[in-house]
Amino acid sequence: MLREFKLDIRVRYNETDGQGRVHHAQYLNYFERGRVEMLRASGFSYKELEKGGLMLVVSEIRVRYLLPAEFDDDLVLTTRVLYARGARLEHQYQLHRGSDLLVEADTEIACIDRTGKVRRLPNYLQFSREVRE
Amino acid sequence: MLREFKLDIRVRYNETDGQGRVHHAQYLNYFERGRVEMLRASGFSYKELEKGGLMLVVSEIRVRYLLPAEFDDDLVLTTRVLYARGARLEHQYQLHRGSDLLVEADTEIACIDRTGKVRRLPNYLQFSREVRE
Amino acid sequence: MLREFKLDIRVRYNETDGQGRVHHAQYLNYFERGRVEMLRASGFSYKELEKGGLMLVVSEIRVRYLLPAEFDDDLVLTTRVLYARGARLEHQYQLHRGSDLLVEADTEIACIDRTGKVRRLPNYLQFSREVRE
Amino acid sequence: MLREFKLDIRVRYNETDGQGRVHHAQYLNYFERGRVEMLRASGFSYKELEKGGLMLVVSEIRVRYLLPAEFDDDLVLTTRVLYARGARLEHQYQLHRGSDLLVEADTEIACIDRTGKVRRLPNYLQFSREVRE
Repeated sequence: MLREFKLDIRVRYNETDGQGRVHHAQYLNYFERGRVEMLRASGFSYKELEKGGLMLVVSEIRVRYLLPAEFDDDLVLTTRVLYARGARLEHQYQLHRGSDLLVEADTEIACIDRTGKVRRLPNYLQFSREVRE
Repeated sequence: MLREFKLDIRVRYNETDGQGRVHHAQYLNYFERGRVEMLRASGFSYKELEKGGLMLVVSEIRVRYLLPAEFDDDLVLTTRVLYARGARLEHQYQLHRGSDLLVEADTEIACIDRTGKVRRLPNYLQFSREVRE
Repeated sequence: MLREFKLDIRVRYNETDGQGRVHHAQYLNYFERGRVEMLRASGFSYKELEKGGLMLVVSEIRVRYLLPAEFDDDLVLTTRVLYARGARLEHQYQLHRGSDLLVEADTEIACIDRTGKVRRLPNYLQFSREVRE
Repeated sequence: MLREFKLDIRVRYNETDGQGRVHHAQYLNYFERGRVEMLRASGFSYKELEKGGLMLVVSEIRVRYLLPAEFDDDLVLTTRVLYARGARLEHQYQLHRGSDLLVEADTEIACIDRTGKVRRLPNYLQFSREVRE
């Protein structure tokens, strides 16, 4: 499982709002894409994970908006896994346009089953020890 | 079952786009609200219908955009049922701001079950004879 | 200017995702509605504020997701202003379904003009002294 | 200017709804991407066109939904220009998953300026004669 992954993102028209900027809620969709594509690049599939009865749900998110992104911008999202043990994942995100850092975020994610019960992450998602230090 | 229903809609910020207008895809969400709220006003619940194993899916839509709606506009959506027999529903929509007609649309909707198979509409949604003439 | 405001929110179908729950990014749109409607209930208009050349932009957000909301749920969003001085606003949000607390959040908001320059909040948005203590 | 363009689209999680399928309004965002990317592949930029004071707005859309798309599906959108003269564009869209046709649509688009006045399309968007016949 990769611990860091870079994804190119092109801003779509429907993601902007009346201020001509990406609406602040849309960045959460970018972060979700970062997680899904990092999993794919690691050889796994979030779709298969859900078919197997598990869901990853965001339990906490913190976002710092530094500079606005606009329609058609070419962005690079860096997604990092900070922690992956038991039923819990922690990710960190940095969204850049060229050398400008636009948005920083981190999330805590819980693994649950269809009844909402907390479940251990699949082995391939677990880190043998913490990356964070 | 009502055959016509009026719903007040206040335009939300996240529904506008970089042109400062409601994004053209958002109107389809308004029409969906019109159908759900007309059902509720008739004493039924779309949520219960889905719990019972049926889904209403849009099979065709036609929209004519005449004038743009903007953030914070107070709109009135009129939803009419034109046809409701067998597995098929037809609705017509008119979205007004004051006396100005902004958007007109019509949809065809099919009733299916969770496997995707076409199913007869529940009795309470059926019209005994066509309204259209 | 009100310091606390309650808003009824009915979950729309297009706000749910493949898990049958409200997508976690959608709650940010609810909080935005809370701010806009609190302003309206206080006798002011966010639309007029933007027409006057000022914009309120979210600079930081923290969200804790405790329980999922589902399609058609009847929710109550409580929005509180914690701080409103200079160019900065702080809000806190609690989203309930009945007595269940589903989501808690807080935001920091900056007042800027169309060029992106930080600007003092209009007087009617300022608190004479901090509420927070 | 290209008259036909194929775009790969990967379905994002936030584009699905409680039925586990792509929400029917989301396809309009795919068609918009098709137009924007076809313009880019032709050497032009929709962003620059808007900066120059012109906007392309959808005045009519017709969509036929044949089969549902799901999360993570790999789709191919074919966008065709049928007509491009005066102030009017007509496009046709076909969305496939493998050999399955999922959605078909066509749109009429008007070119306007910031005041909403109808304006002639830029020369590079005009066809010398109709393609349609």
